[in-house]
Formats: sequence, structure tokens, C-alpha cells
Amino acid sequence: MTLRTPYLLFIGDAPDQLAAKTAHGIAFWRPEISVGQFRLPGCNADLGIPDMNIEEAAAAGVKTVIVGTTNRGGVLGEGWEGLLVRALELGMDLASGLHHRLTDIPALREAAARCGRQIADVRHPTREFAVGNGIKRPGKRLLTVGTDCSIGKMFTALALKKEMRARGINADFRATGQTGIFIAGDGVSIDAVVSDFVSGAVEWLCPENDPDHWDLIEGQGSLFHASYAGVTLGLIHGAQPDALVMCHEPTRKHMRGLPTYKLPDLGICIARNVEAAQLTNPAAVCVGVSVNSGALDAAAARDYLRRTEDETGLPCVDPVRTGIGGIVDRLLR
Amino acid sequence: MTLRTPYLLFIGDAPDQLAAKTAHGIAFWRPEISVGQFRLPGCNADLGIPDMNIEEAAAAGVKTVIVGTTNRGGVLGEGWEGLLVRALELGMDLASGLHHRLTDIPALREAAARCGRQIADVRHPTREFAVGNGIKRPGKRLLTVGTDCSIGKMFTALALKKEMRARGINADFRATGQTGIFIAGDGVSIDAVVSDFVSGAVEWLCPENDPDHWDLIEGQGSLFHASYAGVTLGLIHGAQPDALVMCHEPTRKHMRGLPTYKLPDLGICIARNVEAAQLTNPAAVCVGVSVNSGALDAAAARDYLRRTEDETGLPCVDPVRTGIGGIVDRLLR
Repeated sequence: MTLRTPYLLFIGDAPDQLAAKTAHGIAFWRPEISVGQFRLPGCNADLGIPDMNIEEAAAAGVKTVIVGTTNRGGVLGEGWEGLLVRALELGMDLASGLHHRLTDIPALREAAARCGRQIADVRHPTREFAVGNGIKRPGKRLLTVGTDCSIGKMFTALALKKEMRARGINADFRATGQTGIFIAGDGVSIDAVVSDFVSGAVEWLCPENDPDHWDLIEGQGSLFHASYAGVTLGLIHGAQPDALVMCHEPTRKHMRGLPTYKLPDLGICIARNVEAAQLTNPAAVCVGVSVNSGALDAAAARDYLRRTEDETGLPCVDPVRTGIGGIVDRLLR
Repeated sequence: MTLRTPYLLFIGDAPDQLAAKTAHGIAFWRPEISVGQFRLPGCNADLGIPDMNIEEAAAAGVKTVIVGTTNRGGVLGEGWEGLLVRALELGMDLASGLHHRLTDIPALREAAARCGRQIADVRHPTREFAVGNGIKRPGKRLLTVGTDCSIGKMFTALALKKEMRARGINADFRATGQTGIFIAGDGVSIDAVVSDFVSGAVEWLCPENDPDHWDLIEGQGSLFHASYAGVTLGLIHGAQPDALVMCHEPTRKHMRGLPTYKLPDLGICIARNVEAAQLTNPAAVCVGVSVNSGALDAAAARDYLRRTEDETGLPCVDPVRTGIGGIVDRLLR
């Protein structure tokens, strides 16, 4: 499954910017394929790209309509179905990151069949994976890991790819979540894979490659997240990372969704992730800390990065504020 | 889904005892519900219980035919389908631990519907689970963990249940794999759960209970198995174990299915499992080592157990040779 580009980003009646964060990620990282946004009355999100309806998108050459948001009930809003049928009739594919499959909606499934179009429910793997074999494969791999979920692992991997490519390094981003898949055009939504096959799916996602090629693999969850740590561990083992980058947000009060769980100590979190990675790649090391310091003012952010650099002995950057060059320098040393 | 008892154990043309190991486990742990075995020409396994055909089983009051083996191609052998249809027609349910679903076979599905009977593909969860919430719940829990897969975790949990019940302790076995589910009559095949929901499925499997009640939870995989460690970690976090029992086989040359991976050091393996368990239950401790010493002679086994007891400071038993009482003593101290 590879998504055809360019995209129309369908954000429906998203009540705020956060509700459209998948579309935001796509528009930020792939502006050249994000030709328009489709908003309905009541939408309070704005991606800062041209508004288009379905007909205008087709005329502009859009190949895939990305459905990255639901209404407040987690399902398609009233009237959305007809709009998406129209998109199929005008020759566009659909791609969705929703929990409920678009392919489970009879009208959409029938329209896609009738028009010879594809519907990609990227949160649901459509192929079977083998069990992981743990056999070391050629090519270099970097995996982003985190103290928590939703803490900048995708952003960091994409920033690394951009910086490494700018330096002429042969590098690819490997997507493991829905937003990453829309950005990359393919990938595996790893938390939707049956648990037995997680490591195998990751081995498939970043297979053997040239010795100087880097896969920059989007991490998921956290070894310290009581709900999802198993996903993270399977991902670490399948990735066989040569390098880890730890992602962190210094003002977060508790683990996402778990009010009684504090974030782990950064040093312990790094040590445990390296320990886990060394099972399938004994040479694994941590090469840096990527901080989302957006909640701090400039001086506090500078202090935090410097202090963390001293404490961990690793380059410590904020990809937005300082760029990610310091980590790439360390990686290439 | 609760399986009706008693069972007929269908072992087809199993080429050797190992191919019928699921049925062996059932016959060993639940002799009172294993009223007969059904063997076909070419079968080289023998459970040591009466041979019965489908009609005899129905007459003997069997309620469920357990299909725990495939032919060599991993599918149903020739002619098996008709036998299983006959079982449904005679009022018996079917339960299967095969990778391929019996419910995907039209003749079986139709016969079950026609006769009002159930087909349980226990390897495939039939319900949705919530994401794990990590909230500490009442009741006591023990989880068996291991240095490797297939190393005695189910056997140990069942032996603990038997010993604890014999001492008047309120204890239940919680099954997480197919054989365990047949033995218990219910459970969740945890490695078949979508990875995001593994911890949540385990929270569901061993919910809050009386303060003095023990759930004895069957472990899966190993934190040191490159293919399955993620399953193990999700299981550990969802179980919130008060106590861990480490299972080990001292003569195994490499991790199961991974010829280049050695077994972990026992002490490190215990430490890492306790560390992982303490995320969701800070009071988690290891209370013993359960050794499958079947490959050693009596003197070597005795030496090994004594030496391991000295090295780990934990009671070290072989449930078959020494009984598991030493671990229960420690648990209750």
C-alpha cells in the first residue's frame, strides 16, 4: 500500500487545532503534497493552506483525500459519507487514520469498487507479518524512543532525515504510526499489529540495506508507559537500532493518559532503552536527547538543554529551537 | 467464551508425542474432563486415555471436541472436516487452538449454525479490549516468567494453583495461551491480541478480587526473546504482579527458534523482570525459580537446584521432581 499524492486534507468540523493534528503534521512536513484543506462549518482548525471543496481538489490534481479526524463521537460526521463518495467518483482515493475502518462503511466500499479506487485504512495492517527472527541485517538504523507517548518521536525522526539528507547522507524515514504513514506515503501502524508479530513487522519495515544507508525509524510509546510498553519493546527489538535518540518534554506532569504515573528519570530511561536495544544489536548506543521545550521561555529552554547535556553527556537539542544538527554530528563521529 | 466439558481430545494423525502436546497438557492437568482421545490411522501419539470415535464420545457425554493438532501442513487433514461436522450434528461444540480458524471453514460454520453449536477458535480473541489503565487493583497476583519460551510457565502456574488450593488458599489459574485456555475452560490467547491492547487484555483477564485471593497467571515468551519480548512486557505490566516465579531449563543451548541467541544469565533475567514489574506494582518481587530438570539425572538435578538456590537466594524447585511447595512457602512468608 503506497498512497498516491498530492493530498486534500479533510479536517471536517475539528473543534480545535489539536483535533486536526494529523493533518497539521502532514501539512508541516509535506507542504509540496498538501494542496488543500477541506473544512466544514464549525471547524476551528486551520492548516494555513488553501480551502478546497471536493470538486476543486479533483480539478487541482489531488489523488488522495486524507481523513485524519472524526467528529466528537469518534465516527464520521453527518453528511461526510456523501462527500467521500463524491471524492471516489471524481477519481480520488481515500486514506484514513481513524479507528473505525472506512472500508466497513458499505457506501464507501461500494463506491470504491465501482470507481476502481482505493481506500487505505492505514491504522489497520492489510498484510500478514512473520514472527521476528532477530537476525542482524546490513544497513544502519536509528530509532527514536521517548520518556512518554506523544513526545516528539515522529518529529525528531523526520527532522533527522531532513538534516541528514541535507548533508548528503543516504537516509529514509520509516513510519510506524498513522500520521507518519501519511507523511511517508507508506509504513506500518505498529500498535495495530497482533502482538506476536510486532518485531517481525518492524524487521519487514526496515529491511537490509546498503552499509552506509540510515533508516530513521519513528518510535512509539515508551518503555515506561504502563499501557503501551510492550509495543515499544517489540519495536526496539525489531529495529535492531545502532543508535537511539531519546525524546522528552520537560514540563509534562504525568505519563499521557495515566495521571498516577510520573515520567521516568531521563538517565534511567536512556539506560533501560539502550539495555533493551542491545539484545538484538549489542552495539546500540544513545546518541542524543531531543527535547520539546515549547512550554519553556527561551532562557529556561537554553538552561534546560545545557543542564541535560551535562547530566547525560549527550548532545541535547530542541529540533524546533536549535535544530537537530548536534545529534547528527554525534551520530557521524 | 467458556468451554463446555467434558472433552474429547482429537489428535488426528499426530506423528509423535510432541505434536500432541496441547492434548497431553489437557489430559495431564484435567484428567476428570478428558474422557477420550480420537486418533486416526498413522497417529503415533497416545494420551493414555480411552480411544473413542465421534459417536462413542457423544454417547459418553462429551460436550466439546478439542482440536489441538494439525496435519504436517498446518491445516486440517483430509476427511477431518466430515468428522467435525458429525461432532456438531451430535450436539458437541468444537474448540481449536490452530492458527487457521475453524470458523473460516464454510462446512463447519454452516453445520454449527444449523445445529446451534459453538466453535471456539481460542487462539483468536473474539472480544475487544480496552487499553491498559495501570490502576492498581485489589487482589494478589503471581505471574510466571521465563528465561525463554516453552520453558514451563504454564506448568508452573498450574502446579502453584494445585499446591495453594491444597493448602486452602483461594487461588485461580489465569490462562494466556491455547493449552492453558483448554485446561482452564477460558482465558485470553494474549499473543494474538493487537499490541496496543495487550496490557488492557491482561487487566481484564485478572480483574480486581478479594484481598486474599491469588491469581496465578500463565506467562508468555521472555523479556530476552528477540521475537516475543514485547508480548511478555505487556503481560507483566497488565498483570501488576505481587510475585514473579522465574522458569528455566538448564540444558537449553539457545533461545527457542533463534540459534544465534544464548539464554540470558539467570540472575540478570530475574532482575530485569522484577524491574519491569515494578512499573505497575512497585512491591513486585521474585519468590522462586522453577526448573525443568528433566534432561539431568537425579544427582545433577539436585546439584543444580542447590547451586541455583545459593546463587539467587531464592527457593529453587523442579515442580515434577521436588514439588513446588518451597516456592509457596516463600510466597506465604
